Amino acid sequence: MTTLKRWVLKHRPQGEIAPGDLELVEEPIADLADGEVLVRNVYLSLDPTNRIWMSDQDQYLPPVQIGETMRGGGIGVVERSRSDSFKQGDVVNPGLAGWSTHTIAAAGAVSPVPAIPGVPLTAFMSVLGATGLTAWFGMIDIGKPQAGETVVVSAAAGAVGSIAGQLAKLRGARVIGIAGGKAKCDWLTGELGFDGAIDYKSENVGAALDRLCPNGIDVNFENVGGEIMDAVFSRMNNFGRMVLCGMISTYNAGGIPAGPTDFSRILMHRLTVKGFIIIDYLPRASEALAELGPLVASGALKWKVHVEDGLENAVAAVGRLFTGDHDGKLLLRISPEP
Amino acid sequence: MTTLKRWVLKHRPQGEIAPGDLELVEEPIADLADGEVLVRNVYLSLDPTNRIWMSDQDQYLPPVQIGETMRGGGIGVVERSRSDSFKQGDVVNPGLAGWSTHTIAAAGAVSPVPAIPGVPLTAFMSVLGATGLTAWFGMIDIGKPQAGETVVVSAAAGAVGSIAGQLAKLRGARVIGIAGGKAKCDWLTGELGFDGAIDYKSENVGAALDRLCPNGIDVNFENVGGEIMDAVFSRMNNFGRMVLCGMISTYNAGGIPAGPTDFSRILMHRLTVKGFIIIDYLPRASEALAELGPLVASGALKWKVHVEDGLENAVAAVGRLFTGDHDGKLLLRISPEP
Repeated sequence: MTTLKRWVLKHRPQGEIAPGDLELVEEPIADLADGEVLVRNVYLSLDPTNRIWMSDQDQYLPPVQIGETMRGGGIGVVERSRSDSFKQGDVVNPGLAGWSTHTIAAAGAVSPVPAIPGVPLTAFMSVLGATGLTAWFGMIDIGKPQAGETVVVSAAAGAVGSIAGQLAKLRGARVIGIAGGKAKCDWLTGELGFDGAIDYKSENVGAALDRLCPNGIDVNFENVGGEIMDAVFSRMNNFGRMVLCGMISTYNAGGIPAGPTDFSRILMHRLTVKGFIIIDYLPRASEALAELGPLVASGALKWKVHVEDGLENAVAAVGRLFTGDHDGKLLLRISPEP
Repeated sequence: MTTLKRWVLKHRPQGEIAPGDLELVEEPIADLADGEVLVRNVYLSLDPTNRIWMSDQDQYLPPVQIGETMRGGGIGVVERSRSDSFKQGDVVNPGLAGWSTHTIAAAGAVSPVPAIPGVPLTAFMSVLGATGLTAWFGMIDIGKPQAGETVVVSAAAGAVGSIAGQLAKLRGARVIGIAGGKAKCDWLTGELGFDGAIDYKSENVGAALDRLCPNGIDVNFENVGGEIMDAVFSRMNNFGRMVLCGMISTYNAGGIPAGPTDFSRILMHRLTVKGFIIIDYLPRASEALAELGPLVASGALKWKVHVEDGLENAVAAVGRLFTGDHDGKLLLRISPEP
């Protein structure tokens, strides 16, 4: 292989990501400098935040610039190495892989992916990767659900939400999930042990919350924003915690997304609203993995990945996040597992 | 004295509190039951939250009901006692005094006010009372200002704001106050040691914040709400803390007050927004008083009270909170100090 392919941002999307917003380019693979490795990417993580990075809205990292390779996290296999730290065949996280078949990275930015018997590689792209860490730090470190409290998770069948909800259950909380469609809701209550699920596509979320959360809501793990967030927020109990993890319903809309209708509820009900981005917590990853690792190994924590194939399908694949047309952590397989 | 006077809520105010919204009634003082004390009230605390209690908006205590005595905190002197815990002449906090010349309270609800040489009684109605506790828990326990951080306090010349700002200065923060009028601003920078002050009545707050907070804002001690809050919020740094103590600019408006324009800033900049009500912190009062007491005794902490006289002037007096026509913690003197 002497060439690589990568997706370059051409235009900032208006609304949904359109095929012409990114361009797939092919180019020769550069020679490695001393201390660099060439990684053949295997899995690319597709995440709601990709849409934020494509925009120039106020955000937590610099937007991807027009003409740059689209940013993304991934796992791959070392194909060539000019570093003593890595050899051909090593499975690694190359830092930010990008939407690319190959990544050249300085060895210092590359981290090895451990091989754990019985744990598939995709786990490190989901429950033992940023997805699981996001769920753990958001729910455990920020949300702090207590036994008997009521927790509501939006996008609850999603990669992060499904783990966050299970973690709250393990703390003894009563957990209600909001998801799109009967199948997802059935999965939450039937397999994950959620105490209730609300299908926002067919139910009035507010009325369902009134029915399922008769004692109000203590913790909101919020992934969605907009009207769903407002329905939960307006039912938050005194001393409630809103863990603001994402606002996916607003990312395609452009402009400034609406907040909750009655901000003064934060005062009157002594709420804490805390936004977080997982990159800030990576230095503390071991705290989360100490719980997640055994739960994954024992099978006590359920998780799913939804794998689409082929870098050329990246744009179509990422769109599934916004329609809900996926089932678990959305990954793009760029090349075969080693 | 065989009668008392008390203000009864007649109508919920529309906009500003109007004279007819409350009625001053006179009635015989009831006989004491066993275990009760009769307190002649000396000082009544007038606070922005009084306006909330008069409304039926969603709030942190039950609204004062039509026909009830207006709620309020105060200090007084025991006139009669049928409790072994208190004797005539004791200076006490009778729990909630109400807007009344006298309060009959069960001894269990009454607490003694200590006599500290050199510390006037009004200190216990301000810097060593709920006002000072509000400033301390809001700024120190929630805001957690660090040396070198930028702190912005709104209503900074107010009873709470002026103490909150000084506490942040003592932690080594750079403190900017927002207040109404040159005299208040001069007091903040000239006497309290604030690093800057913004006169919202004559300056564009956003432009002034840009000038005075070139490195953004780390802590916002928020008392005002509305456009002033939004100007501060939109300049909050990553990991910033908004201490939501009050939203006085919205209390007379009715309806649901606006929140910050861009709620998603909480996510993108990993902000923490926490509302608090001082009554929740009263069990921890000693933590605050351990710092406030010595600061008051030494004169290191500056504080002011603005005393209006006569229970009959309560309605006019409380209105000063909303026009800013007062200078320090607003108190109503109902009867002479002992």
